[in-house]
Amino acid sequence: MLVNNKHYITIWLDKNNPEIVRTIDQTLLPHKFKIISLKTCNDIIKAIKDMIVRGAPLIGVAAAYGIYLASLEAKQKCKTEKQINNYIMEKAKQIFNTRPTAINISNAIKNSLEIILKIKSIEEKIPSALNFASSLSVEEIIRCKKIGEHGLELIKRISEEKKEETVNILTHCNAGWLACIDYGTATAPIYFAHKMGIKLHVYVEETRPRNQGASLTAWEFLQNKIPHTIITDNAGGYIMQKGMVDMVIVGSDRTTLTGDVCNKIGTYKTALAAKDNNIPFYVALPSSSIDKKIKNGLKEIPIEERNKDEVKYISGKSKYGITKVLLTPNKSPAKNFGFDITPARLVTALITEKGVIKPQKSDIIKA
Amino acid sequence: MLVNNKHYITIWLDKNNPEIVRTIDQTLLPHKFKIISLKTCNDIIKAIKDMIVRGAPLIGVAAAYGIYLASLEAKQKCKTEKQINNYIMEKAKQIFNTRPTAINISNAIKNSLEIILKIKSIEEKIPSALNFASSLSVEEIIRCKKIGEHGLELIKRISEEKKEETVNILTHCNAGWLACIDYGTATAPIYFAHKMGIKLHVYVEETRPRNQGASLTAWEFLQNKIPHTIITDNAGGYIMQKGMVDMVIVGSDRTTLTGDVCNKIGTYKTALAAKDNNIPFYVALPSSSIDKKIKNGLKEIPIEERNKDEVKYISGKSKYGITKVLLTPNKSPAKNFGFDITPARLVTALITEKGVIKPQKSDIIKA
Repeated sequence: MLVNNKHYITIWLDKNNPEIVRTIDQTLLPHKFKIISLKTCNDIIKAIKDMIVRGAPLIGVAAAYGIYLASLEAKQKCKTEKQINNYIMEKAKQIFNTRPTAINISNAIKNSLEIILKIKSIEEKIPSALNFASSLSVEEIIRCKKIGEHGLELIKRISEEKKEETVNILTHCNAGWLACIDYGTATAPIYFAHKMGIKLHVYVEETRPRNQGASLTAWEFLQNKIPHTIITDNAGGYIMQKGMVDMVIVGSDRTTLTGDVCNKIGTYKTALAAKDNNIPFYVALPSSSIDKKIKNGLKEIPIEERNKDEVKYISGKSKYGITKVLLTPNKSPAKNFGFDITPARLVTALITEKGVIKPQKSDIIKA
Repeated sequence: MLVNNKHYITIWLDKNNPEIVRTIDQTLLPHKFKIISLKTCNDIIKAIKDMIVRGAPLIGVAAAYGIYLASLEAKQKCKTEKQINNYIMEKAKQIFNTRPTAINISNAIKNSLEIILKIKSIEEKIPSALNFASSLSVEEIIRCKKIGEHGLELIKRISEEKKEETVNILTHCNAGWLACIDYGTATAPIYFAHKMGIKLHVYVEETRPRNQGASLTAWEFLQNKIPHTIITDNAGGYIMQKGMVDMVIVGSDRTTLTGDVCNKIGTYKTALAAKDNNIPFYVALPSSSIDKKIKNGLKEIPIEERNKDEVKYISGKSKYGITKVLLTPNKSPAKNFGFDITPARLVTALITEKGVIKPQKSDIIKA
């Protein structure tokens, strides 16, 4: 998508040196747009760990590029095939440990290793690892594009029902192109509808504690000229009560066989408000994030409990530069749950790259 | 309640000089506990406008003290009875304009003026204005105390049902003693139950955008040794899903004849989550905040839209002192609604100074 009127994807190889991975430092957004170079597998590990890159599809691709960089390093550092494979496997383990709950990382690593460990010559391992990473990147782009095309139809229908008055969409967190490679999941239908000239406006819930809505989604929308308004998570219910929202679209980190949706903390409250006000609640997701082994989201999906300091402190831009401030009494305890579960009964439909499907086993099993 | 192990109320007269009003500067909490002197009616006006004092009962009492200080000034500045009354009425108007939607301010001013404008001598006006202010303060304390006694019974019942295991309570915003004169409304039952030795723990929703939960309620609880945990507003739904909450108690700014509750933005989403998880949702309020003229909260109560910068910026303690930071893209629009409406169907009961009543016309009309 556009940044300063130029098209970017979130991760790519340096044009002049294909041994360097380039990415946007997302920790500096929305205050500073900075492209950084990741030259070693350790740079990739640090970028995932420090959330310089974040978002399930993006960290999956970053992990695949990590295996590629590890292969390049193995060529320099190791002699025998065994040493080379051990080096790559050790680095793979370190990448995996950055964010162990992210299914995209483990899938990317598993699939990449499956290909390259079988190849004997390091000269052939390297292009294979690279090929895997860039193919995965392209696949993610295609998936988002298809989600956008299917979701576009839903927005178009509401626009027609409203006789082309502005369609008001509400979203939570960042399921945007910054979380993916391009287009995003929840944002793809919005970008496509906007491009088609459908009048729309998006309410962006700030999404405490990490504020991905206020800092990333709003920044994406500003750069791509999508009319939007930032609100607190608390205000999402009120604007629905007042008839100011026509539809909700959010992303998903994991969706069960029965249609329960695990997504950023607060999605559940937003879904309850949508239901209470009879507003359609859509979840946009690649079918690869459906976990068909799981039937009951609330009982079976483990919820990451993150550092309490993400609740107690926040960073923003002050006259001193990017500054971290304490929001609470120093000694008050805090808890920080990363995700919640929106039961299938609150979900109108899932927008996948294969089409719009109902959140129920009979439909999901085919996806 | 206690601050550094000493008992305070939120507003009082200086012991050595009864022409000076003393209060806590709440804008500095939780980072700094500072008592300030309000020496003129203009000081009172500024304190209300800048939210140095906030909370419906407290600003009502502050307004009454403002009329008292205005009377003292009138004695110095004016000669005739007409000039004196004009001066006091002009100041009353200025106090009213600080926060025109707050019913407590207009009631306090109206009732104070009704008494003192009738009195001819300024020598008698002054003690009458003072008497009105201090009586109102005492009445507010008594109301909170009674709310505490009635609410205590509800906590006690849950404690008994749980065989004296910890009762987990969730609250939103600050309906604490800092918003009142002492005890608070939603917090009074909590303070009373804790004092009785009932094991309890409170989840404090931070309450964006002004974070009164994270900064004021948490600070109150820390000072008064109430076990508590700060969570984001988003996390309130998740912890209810996980069975971690036994009851919700919140305050109310205005309650309709039919039991709809207008309270701090986000209360509605929290009430929806309580309902969805079959958790009792109580609203603690003085019966004076019931607006019997209003039947439909959503249609008839005007909702204050506050400055968008309260969403875009936040203040906290950094290494540079209290620092304001920008959280969003500079150019992104934002909207900031102050309150929302929780429909009566989501409210288990109202805890008033007169008893615990159902949120329905037949019961409310008697309150």
